[in-house]
Amino acid sequence: MSRLDFWFDFASTYSYVAAMRIGEEAGRAGVAVRWRAFLLGPIFAAKGVTDCPFNLDPAKGAYMWRDLERLTARRGLPWRRPSVFPRDSIAAGRVAAAYGDAPWLPGFVRAVFHRNFAEDRAIDGLEALEEAVVAAGGPPGAAAQAQDPPLKGALRAATAEAKSKGVFGAPSFTVETEAGAELFWGGDRLADALRCAAQR
Amino acid sequence: MSRLDFWFDFASTYSYVAAMRIGEEAGRAGVAVRWRAFLLGPIFAAKGVTDCPFNLDPAKGAYMWRDLERLTARRGLPWRRPSVFPRDSIAAGRVAAAYGDAPWLPGFVRAVFHRNFAEDRAIDGLEALEEAVVAAGGPPGAAAQAQDPPLKGALRAATAEAKSKGVFGAPSFTVETEAGAELFWGGDRLADALRCAAQR
Repeated sequence: MSRLDFWFDFASTYSYVAAMRIGEEAGRAGVAVRWRAFLLGPIFAAKGVTDCPFNLDPAKGAYMWRDLERLTARRGLPWRRPSVFPRDSIAAGRVAAAYGDAPWLPGFVRAVFHRNFAEDRAIDGLEALEEAVVAAGGPPGAAAQAQDPPLKGALRAATAEAKSKGVFGAPSFTVETEAGAELFWGGDRLADALRCAAQR
Repeated sequence: MSRLDFWFDFASTYSYVAAMRIGEEAGRAGVAVRWRAFLLGPIFAAKGVTDCPFNLDPAKGAYMWRDLERLTARRGLPWRRPSVFPRDSIAAGRVAAAYGDAPWLPGFVRAVFHRNFAEDRAIDGLEALEEAVVAAGGPPGAAAQAQDPPLKGALRAATAEAKSKGVFGAPSFTVETEAGAELFWGGDRLADALRCAAQR
């Protein structure tokens, strides 16, 4: 089956929108999705950028918040501008990276994104993460186990892999081709990425 | 008639793609386009950014060039990656800003973009600009006149106006509403911007 890697950071607003729609759109396109949590922070830091670009550039930030209002309204997605941005996404990212292939993973991812961007609640507490795992059908204890070796390293490895594929923002989508990874950046390129994946 | 302002910089790759399609799409939507040349350079410089972000971030730059290949191929637009990037767009911008309302302006804009991104040729020579003006149906001498007062100031004023409306990248689109200018950034938001304009 055709496959696409979906790279997201739980702190990223546009990743939220992509996470909520990708299941349905990939299903329609006949493309399997690999859910790939990673961290944008280390990728920004490696080029000397110490905060989110939307915080560093007031004009770009103001635009992003307005764009998200419009985008979520148009897609009928719940939206509450988070009072903390970006939120610490390491603990949640470790869970998603450690259990990337689990059948309950997409449900967990959507629950965490919903918490951040529809409920304006922190996503770094283990209790909330455990709750989201179990609600999605995962095993109790999974969220805690993902915070320690050997599982804990999966998020760091995923971030390194994202960087090696040229990922510089989120959401991103990659499709493996003979010539290497074909990269698509931003929710606006999801349809193109799915078309690319479906042709392989 | 509904109206939308189209903000572009002749040095900007994504502005090229937008310039080539906006006439047709706005026509279908029943929206009049005001062609608004401006300069991104001073807007970047005001926040301490001294080169194009695509040059400063190699991963983002590599992605942009690949994305442009795909984008132009899909839209059937001619494309040759420019050997100089970004090209000096001041002289061409002055012409476009000074004669923004002229009927020959859209043709001139498309000719200059074609020169930069389909022919890989400089766009700062007066001779070439004059040629583009006349080919589009404009008066001989217009390109030269735009380089001196009083016309020369129009580009600077347009750049200040873009900044005051929150523009931070190109292409951008603005629609005037009761609450101020509604801003859309990037060719991927053109359809949204046209829909917004058509509803007024």
